[in-house]
Amino acid sequence: MALTHFDSQGRAHMVDVSDKEITSRVAVAEGWVRMLPETLTLVQQGSAKKGDVLGVARLAGIMGAKKTADLIPLCHPLPISKVAVELEADPALPGVRIAATVKTTGQTGVEMEALTAVSTAALTVYDMLKAVDRGMEMGGIRVILKDGGKSGRFEAGA
Amino acid sequence: MALTHFDSQGRAHMVDVSDKEITSRVAVAEGWVRMLPETLTLVQQGSAKKGDVLGVARLAGIMGAKKTADLIPLCHPLPISKVAVELEADPALPGVRIAATVKTTGQTGVEMEALTAVSTAALTVYDMLKAVDRGMEMGGIRVILKDGGKSGRFEAGA
Amino acid sequence: MALTHFDSQGRAHMVDVSDKEITSRVAVAEGWVRMLPETLTLVQQGSAKKGDVLGVARLAGIMGAKKTADLIPLCHPLPISKVAVELEADPALPGVRIAATVKTTGQTGVEMEALTAVSTAALTVYDMLKAVDRGMEMGGIRVILKDGGKSGRFEAGA
Amino acid sequence: MALTHFDSQGRAHMVDVSDKEITSRVAVAEGWVRMLPETLTLVQQGSAKKGDVLGVARLAGIMGAKKTADLIPLCHPLPISKVAVELEADPALPGVRIAATVKTTGQTGVEMEALTAVSTAALTVYDMLKAVDRGMEMGGIRVILKDGGKSGRFEAGA
Amino acid sequence: MALTHFDSQGRAHMVDVSDKEITSRVAVAEGWVRMLPETLTLVQQGSAKKGDVLGVARLAGIMGAKKTADLIPLCHPLPISKVAVELEADPALPGVRIAATVKTTGQTGVEMEALTAVSTAALTVYDMLKAVDRGMEMGGIRVILKDGGKSGRFEAGA
Amino acid sequence: MALTHFDSQGRAHMVDVSDKEITSRVAVAEGWVRMLPETLTLVQQGSAKKGDVLGVARLAGIMGAKKTADLIPLCHPLPISKVAVELEADPALPGVRIAATVKTTGQTGVEMEALTAVSTAALTVYDMLKAVDRGMEMGGIRVILKDGGKSGRFEAGA
Repeated sequence: MALTHFDSQGRAHMVDVSDKEITSRVAVAEGWVRMLPETLTLVQQGSAKKGDVLGVARLAGIMGAKKTADLIPLCHPLPISKVAVELEADPALPGVRIAATVKTTGQTGVEMEALTAVSTAALTVYDMLKAVDRGMEMGGIRVILKDGGKSGRFEAGA
Repeated sequence: MALTHFDSQGRAHMVDVSDKEITSRVAVAEGWVRMLPETLTLVQQGSAKKGDVLGVARLAGIMGAKKTADLIPLCHPLPISKVAVELEADPALPGVRIAATVKTTGQTGVEMEALTAVSTAALTVYDMLKAVDRGMEMGGIRVILKDGGKSGRFEAGA
Repeated sequence: MALTHFDSQGRAHMVDVSDKEITSRVAVAEGWVRMLPETLTLVQQGSAKKGDVLGVARLAGIMGAKKTADLIPLCHPLPISKVAVELEADPALPGVRIAATVKTTGQTGVEMEALTAVSTAALTVYDMLKAVDRGMEMGGIRVILKDGGKSGRFEAGA
Repeated sequence: MALTHFDSQGRAHMVDVSDKEITSRVAVAEGWVRMLPETLTLVQQGSAKKGDVLGVARLAGIMGAKKTADLIPLCHPLPISKVAVELEADPALPGVRIAATVKTTGQTGVEMEALTAVSTAALTVYDMLKAVDRGMEMGGIRVILKDGGKSGRFEAGA
Repeated sequence: MALTHFDSQGRAHMVDVSDKEITSRVAVAEGWVRMLPETLTLVQQGSAKKGDVLGVARLAGIMGAKKTADLIPLCHPLPISKVAVELEADPALPGVRIAATVKTTGQTGVEMEALTAVSTAALTVYDMLKAVDRGMEMGGIRVILKDGGKSGRFEAGA
Repeated sequence: MALTHFDSQGRAHMVDVSDKEITSRVAVAEGWVRMLPETLTLVQQGSAKKGDVLGVARLAGIMGAKKTADLIPLCHPLPISKVAVELEADPALPGVRIAATVKTTGQTGVEMEALTAVSTAALTVYDMLKAVDRGMEMGGIRVILKDGGKSGRFEAGA
């Protein structure tokens, strides 16, 4: 089986999508940042009144989605038509859960944009809390929904 | 306890580091991409001869480190003096393990640069393999070493 | 009345424009940089023969329009199809008047691109003249024409 | 009198600052966005509970400061050591007043970074409110304090 | 004869392409880096086993194509649909020959993207080898094929 | 002989320069764009009065120098302290000759910045003239002076 990002001689290239149909596409990705319970308490207090960690990370995630083709070498530039990033405190983790939804009308899927939004939001959460908790971990970053292209609908199992 | 990225009224700001000493700093971060065993086999074949997934992801990680202050809203721009990104296949995962080392001589630490290098390399591994395995997951992204600043040496437990 | 850049729970997002029609759109914005009369004289001498402040600012404005989606967090990336930036000395101000016209064929308007072109050109005029006049002021930055979308034609009153 | 951004033959260049001393520098810039009174009411309601226009614009201003050398052709890249952007509703305007403070330890001043932060924050306020008020105007953008370089302290008159 | 990048008064602008047809377009550019024979031997050894100069330069060329509208002031941003960059050792030069192919479906041609890919790949080859050979030269950078727009097919003579 | 941009196992990395001395460094690079005699005539008329091709390319070159670490994967980010780009018509070529001088006070040399300035200026000249002359060629791009680092002064032979 061959990887599409390499040509027949194994050289990396940006795949030719000229002949793919322009269709409406959507992708949803998720991830989390695990932290100490007392760190999460700080986050929750901030969201309630001041020092809004989740609000800053949401914006970073949205802007990160727009930089995807800059970051991922073989990714096609895409006219994104929607980005939404949700972050919520989950005391059971304990930590912050992140989900990003991205849409486009184009020739390639937007799962990389959704994953980049989640990663950037997670990194930003880490950055804002690192002074009080250096042992945080980011994980669970994966695509949970992709729809609209030739390869059909994909939904991750729970 | 207060978060340094917010002022006394809870407004986000880029912390004043003017009075911090310029010291030699280093950080190491790690992470992984978990995939199906047969996907990893493709990666390993590529590294051995053609279609070098790990080589492309290494370069993306190095370049990602240079974009950290662009991606993370409150991060200071830094004159990075070294970036190395290692990726290796781990059949026990199964998947690819990533580690990034970043150095600077400056006024702030480089753990965000190391984490951004790991995240960008992981996203790039995902991008190159997504056509054959849509269920991959990225995780275990954390700082394992930080040294050189006022807050002293930090090493993550195993 | 709700702001479209926030969802029903007040969280910032990049609005979904997937279902908006692709139409031809245009926007014109304007602004000025007010300066000392003797500073304007320097500008005018430069344009006449050497040290072309207005030419440099024009180019900066055009390039600034292309960076709009990078600068404005919730702005959609757009395939700009035309940018023109005009700058002229106005002794009555005294200073430099700037106008930018941007066109696209897309799903959202280009007034942010036109405003960003004007702002970037104004900042560049300031940068080139600041060594001789630190009290300059930028103002009058507004949209004077917007046409082509669902919301109809808008023209600012004089 | 000659403009420093042009050489003796009138050609634009990035001035040689190699021999300038590395000193601690600060600049403060200000500006405003004027709007309809009912638009300002929306902003104030948002800040109080949901749809935080000022929080998004503050972040955009901070990130904008980091892009200054990208936007202004002849501007030197600088290691910014602090950025703070304040926005407040002013019913007397009516509108939003913006002030940005930037610091560096370097060879050139940071007034362009402070002005770019103000401009970017103002553009972002405009973007988030334009659906309800297309006649807003941005103005009063100027440097009010600059200190730390060879040219001495500058303070704008009130 | 007038240059299209300037208006009737000689002012630079980004040409209006709103009314141009959206067609499938392709461009191929080429160039080379000439070096000492022993430098080329190092490159060839690297490609065979380790230290893959050509692989790094290929990726840089692909990513460079995506930055074209950022680098060239009056260039329109374009949704690139394919980029391939080939590099091969030519002992007769002696040095490395580079060719880049870029495709889009849009309103303007992609020869600037192809040329930027070649230039960026050439600069990267230089960067990686400069420690052993400071006298390298880059040249022969030109468009060899352009097709798909109103101006018809262009092929460079040999 | 080993290439410094690869580690002992042949993996690309950004070389560690932490221990290199901070010194004053300079580099000069040159190159040219060859064109039809009648194309050069258009350039010369423009410079004399309107449609200033060389002025636009000069600015693009200066801005390109600031993007070097973005374009060249293993290049260190550097605080550039001076950039000057000269372009002049040479009827004997026939075409435009370009030279760029870059300075920094840092830990690595600036020859890549000087070469990137020349390349970007050359690409911009091509872009502005391509509508009238598709057969132009860029070449002669090389470093002619490098000074200030550990490796000593380098001057290219004529």
